[in-house]
Amino acid sequence: MTRNDKDNDQSVYIGTRPIMNYVMAAMVILNEEDEETGKAKHCTIKARGKRISRAVDVAEILKKKFVTNAIYVDIRLSTEQLKNADGKVSNVSSIEIEIAKKDEEK
Amino acid sequence: MTRNDKDNDQSVYIGTRPIMNYVMAAMVILNEEDEETGKAKHCTIKARGKRISRAVDVAEILKKKFVTNAIYVDIRLSTEQLKNADGKVSNVSSIEIEIAKKDEEK
Repeated sequence: MTRNDKDNDQSVYIGTRPIMNYVMAAMVILNEEDEETGKAKHCTIKARGKRISRAVDVAEILKKKFVTNAIYVDIRLSTEQLKNADGKVSNVSSIEIEIAKKDEEK
Repeated sequence: MTRNDKDNDQSVYIGTRPIMNYVMAAMVILNEEDEETGKAKHCTIKARGKRISRAVDVAEILKKKFVTNAIYVDIRLSTEQLKNADGKVSNVSSIEIEIAKKDEEK
């Protein structure tokens, strides 16, 4: 997880841990407030390659079961270039799902 | 593939065939025009569960390599309930990536 103060946005990177770990991490972020601005935080769920499916699962479980007033602010798809151990460059798709609590949206 | 005349939108469902099959199918749709309205069609790439990652790959390959003026009109995430053979209901995440050629957008 990284913190980007400027955007009042915090990320959750999807890896290989149990899916509920990520759901809980995202829920904690959405229930926080920024210390300076007092605004509720946005949470961006990020994943690459095969883990994109898991990212969508995390977002949907979060939205349906735990933070029912959550909305998708933005969903971004992109391609990242990764260098393998043998120096070859490969293209990997990635997703960023930005989530916020509805009440806090203007 | 299904056809929805009302929305001038045609879908590509992602399955287990080689990924380029789906890229080509989507490209064909984007290069078509509706016979009645003369407007360029939108293409919606749809996938469920583990195939969501493939759907993002299809969309990104299409956009980066084949239809470089394509834009994402909308990306929708949802949860579908599927009934297994033994009668159990399971929740499956799904994605819909709506794509159009930029020139044709208002």
